[in-house]
Amino acid sequence: MAENISSIDNFSPASPIGIFDSGIGGLTVAKAVVEKLPQESIIYFGDTLHLPYGDKSKETITTYVLRIVDLLLLQKCKLILIACGSASAAAYEEVKKHVGSKALVLNVIDPMIDFLDKNYRNKRVGLIATKQTVESRVYNDKIKLLNGANIDFTSMATPLLVPIIEEGFAEHEIVDLVLKEYFSAPELQGINALVLGCTHYSVIEKAIARCCGPNVKIIEYLDIVASKVKEILDSRGLLNKSGNAVDRRFYVSEYTKAFAEKAKMFFGADVNLQLFS
Amino acid sequence: MAENISSIDNFSPASPIGIFDSGIGGLTVAKAVVEKLPQESIIYFGDTLHLPYGDKSKETITTYVLRIVDLLLLQKCKLILIACGSASAAAYEEVKKHVGSKALVLNVIDPMIDFLDKNYRNKRVGLIATKQTVESRVYNDKIKLLNGANIDFTSMATPLLVPIIEEGFAEHEIVDLVLKEYFSAPELQGINALVLGCTHYSVIEKAIARCCGPNVKIIEYLDIVASKVKEILDSRGLLNKSGNAVDRRFYVSEYTKAFAEKAKMFFGADVNLQLFS
Repeated sequence: MAENISSIDNFSPASPIGIFDSGIGGLTVAKAVVEKLPQESIIYFGDTLHLPYGDKSKETITTYVLRIVDLLLLQKCKLILIACGSASAAAYEEVKKHVGSKALVLNVIDPMIDFLDKNYRNKRVGLIATKQTVESRVYNDKIKLLNGANIDFTSMATPLLVPIIEEGFAEHEIVDLVLKEYFSAPELQGINALVLGCTHYSVIEKAIARCCGPNVKIIEYLDIVASKVKEILDSRGLLNKSGNAVDRRFYVSEYTKAFAEKAKMFFGADVNLQLFS
Repeated sequence: MAENISSIDNFSPASPIGIFDSGIGGLTVAKAVVEKLPQESIIYFGDTLHLPYGDKSKETITTYVLRIVDLLLLQKCKLILIACGSASAAAYEEVKKHVGSKALVLNVIDPMIDFLDKNYRNKRVGLIATKQTVESRVYNDKIKLLNGANIDFTSMATPLLVPIIEEGFAEHEIVDLVLKEYFSAPELQGINALVLGCTHYSVIEKAIARCCGPNVKIIEYLDIVASKVKEILDSRGLLNKSGNAVDRRFYVSEYTKAFAEKAKMFFGADVNLQLFS
């Protein structure tokens, strides 16, 4: 495998996977990665001081993201996973350039595009996501580049879903009412599948499925992205086969009790958030 | 009047009033000040890069706030109005110490406490606000210090209201459903009056009144704070009597189209947001 990683001298199979998000919603992705790859060490960074990314400009998001990437590189991460739709949309190219050969970089959008290309050619596919992700048109642009995929792609910003989930109303009828309002928009009529373009939305997947009805397939990042992480590491001979001394660390840039509680909702009770300082 | 302002050498009656908030919700306060004092120049600063303050720690909020205060002092503001419940709760004492005699400082909480002292002795008063404001217990502490007021004070965090308002659902039945949920909490039963502890909430005052019923008096900051600004400036001989060259400037620390649109909702069409850089 040496030829595959010859240009990457910073890490080994035992190195951790770095995962970051604007907050703690990306813990859903971290959880999916841990479930798929239990032998891997991970370092999670939630930029809770700067959330929400969804409201910020591309330039601002990029500045924040590159600082996080530097932290993860210092920890000798072998792969850096941008577990945030908004950051993936705004700053992926800059991150790749910045990281160079020091680590592998994956966002949450490209695995989804591959998945759509394989499974939804000649179909109508909707996306719900933050304003930043929708306005970036990154999905539209990447789908256009697919050869002959003929995907009728449509997207809509649904910014109220994140705060509703974060405030613990995931099981409340409020969610159904808000979804009903969003899904009455013309953008989302007649779709065959719906991409959940924000890591938070997995928490209310059932309510979304209920609202969309049985004819719309709900597609979420989690398994698709975790599978891609496995595939990439495997192809480079970078899977941690030994599984000794698995280390999982969870950092945030702003620590409050509320964040610690929400972290448990997204990852499970065994998450121990630490303030990075 | 010289004796009143002898220790304050930075400004004159023609100097502007500085108003700041974590975002653009404080524009509701700015609007109330402009309506009450049309001859005054104002400089508004919305810290949109760092919103929401309601999720952040006291230390972080204080750091952001002191930077804004320095900007307003550089503009020789005669009075600095903290038009944000969370910032008032977290950083007022630090701001006063930092500003010293360089300007007058007012928060949105003290005028409300005075008002309650005058009008709601021996009554049960509820407060709805952000998590930060409620958890700071600043209202509780200040009410305890009132001499013989005997106000039965109760408070509850209602963090979903700000995003609902910001996303333009102020007139939607979603608001009623969320309010119904919040107002079923034991904290808010049997109150004679309800303080709207966040500048955003004025936008949905009617829905709140509908939900609380006719026996609960809704008390909002706007007129109370604007009246206090007038009273303070008047008592110091600092009202701008001439009204020539009235200047109104509105800065934000992060500019997006979405912020510009929301600004119109809070202040009116004649607001021209500028990125401060």
